[in-house]
Amino acid sequence: MTRPIAISLGDPAGIGPEIIAKAWDLRQSEQLPSFFVVGDVEAIKAVWNGPVERLDDPGAAASVFDHALPCLQVADAGEIIPGQPTLDGARCAFQALEVATGLARAESASALVTGPVSKAQLAQVGFTHPGQTEFVAERCGVGRDNIVMMLAGPTLRVVPITIHVPFVQVPQTLTASLIRSRALATVRGLRRLFGIENPRLAMAGLNPHAGENGLLGDEEQILIAPVLEQLREEGIDITGPHAADAMFSERARSRYDAALCCYHDQALIPIKTLHFDDGVNITLGLPIVRTSPDHGTAFEIAGRGHAHPGAMIAAIKMARDAEINRRAWAEPA
Amino acid sequence: MTRPIAISLGDPAGIGPEIIAKAWDLRQSEQLPSFFVVGDVEAIKAVWNGPVERLDDPGAAASVFDHALPCLQVADAGEIIPGQPTLDGARCAFQALEVATGLARAESASALVTGPVSKAQLAQVGFTHPGQTEFVAERCGVGRDNIVMMLAGPTLRVVPITIHVPFVQVPQTLTASLIRSRALATVRGLRRLFGIENPRLAMAGLNPHAGENGLLGDEEQILIAPVLEQLREEGIDITGPHAADAMFSERARSRYDAALCCYHDQALIPIKTLHFDDGVNITLGLPIVRTSPDHGTAFEIAGRGHAHPGAMIAAIKMARDAEINRRAWAEPA
Repeated sequence: MTRPIAISLGDPAGIGPEIIAKAWDLRQSEQLPSFFVVGDVEAIKAVWNGPVERLDDPGAAASVFDHALPCLQVADAGEIIPGQPTLDGARCAFQALEVATGLARAESASALVTGPVSKAQLAQVGFTHPGQTEFVAERCGVGRDNIVMMLAGPTLRVVPITIHVPFVQVPQTLTASLIRSRALATVRGLRRLFGIENPRLAMAGLNPHAGENGLLGDEEQILIAPVLEQLREEGIDITGPHAADAMFSERARSRYDAALCCYHDQALIPIKTLHFDDGVNITLGLPIVRTSPDHGTAFEIAGRGHAHPGAMIAAIKMARDAEINRRAWAEPA
Repeated sequence: MTRPIAISLGDPAGIGPEIIAKAWDLRQSEQLPSFFVVGDVEAIKAVWNGPVERLDDPGAAASVFDHALPCLQVADAGEIIPGQPTLDGARCAFQALEVATGLARAESASALVTGPVSKAQLAQVGFTHPGQTEFVAERCGVGRDNIVMMLAGPTLRVVPITIHVPFVQVPQTLTASLIRSRALATVRGLRRLFGIENPRLAMAGLNPHAGENGLLGDEEQILIAPVLEQLREEGIDITGPHAADAMFSERARSRYDAALCCYHDQALIPIKTLHFDDGVNITLGLPIVRTSPDHGTAFEIAGRGHAHPGAMIAAIKMARDAEINRRAWAEPA
């Protein structure tokens, strides 16, 4: 029997508890695999009237899952006022992430799905990583340069090569070695987690019209094209640099399995335009499967009951599928 | 009776002749207004077997339109080999643009739709403008700073504030006065050409997450927010700066009439992701209505018969609607 998926609660004042509970509500129609929350039972009860059952042992989650949302208690989040984050809540979110990661690492959970946290809140309770992704990587003993953040929806997968850097610093941050390592990690990830034997990549240019032969910038000619040429010589199926605005039409998307983008918005604009409600953040390069809904805590709408669980449901399904592919890849017939 | 729309042929070796002819073929099912081509009869016949009728007078176009594609002959484009542009072809495209603009300016045509040209080809025959938009503006006696390029599809309109500049030059090109003039011209254009009395604008930030309160760049705080504040004080309905990646979901798009973007790809990626086959380039700030399909000559597929006429059809319809709105605005009841 497959072990259940561990979902860290995220900030209890955000929409995490609500979308996890809504996903559980839809477990049958969405054919979701068993999962359990890691966090605080009372934090879920504060925003949801359905059945929650406190777990003492994650091994019991599968038998609870049919009739109640299983929750492994790791911290008391204190009084919950949706939209008003507290330090107790942040400590609970931090603890939930730590324990859920450990359970996935120890194979007591088949995969890790992380609920949305507030980085500003976490920073106040001793969390020193730029984000959950880097935290999970460290706990898995993997260097930050060897992991890749991929955003994936039903019709598009994108990888931003530079991520949380100011616009003005993108050109100097985008180096040949970074493009190369992201491309190679993306190929490995598509093979292992998505079961794509011969992944096809497409790389965007940095400038309008991919520089228009140098008229509108030369990073394509000087930096990007040589890296892609080298990768092709090594047998990687990668095209580009392409004009970024022409890469995301339906026809263009059918020609690749993942788009490599130069910077945050070049990747995030198309994925969120197409898959705002079902986009998933999946980390490639880890020894465990880790996904996350591609949105934040949404404090401004928390507690009103109209948070959309689509991305959480998609994250749970993608974690299940990726884990199946990973096992098939690790244990070939 | 409404005067017909003038369509400049574009480069005869590109897909212009084919998509104009295909639009004429669909004139009844698409309920298109009368139009005529300005260019070369033989250039159309080279790629299309349907009826073309040479016009000596644009006034005769409407009576021809029912049974044949009317074409005002302005130049001999020479031998046409689709996909292989020539200098004769470029001269024809240039002449077609010049005459079609003049006809619209003289009100012999109700509006101008420009077919796709090759800037590299035009440059070889004495065309010194950056693009057709600037050429049309000059012929209309309007300065380049007072016109706005808008890309519009059925569910989104975007205006790039900086356009054809290298990525690295975007921050210095994006000035307060440019943001301000583009915003005001966009408001005027939405009123006059789209009939929107109280236009709602949304402005994107430059940095990831709109700078995240200065953590990821400060152009939002130093440059953009003060301009928007000033515009709001003057009664302009403009929100932002927004995180660009969150602006183009269906829900977000319902909250504005046009998105102002800091640079080319920030605007062009979402519009082409959503409306690759029916996106229209419309120039705001001119005394005439001018639209264009939002794509290039596509030399690589010219002459094969599978160019998609959707954007040309959308450009014709938008020109008709904009002209109706413009007349209503100019002559209030």
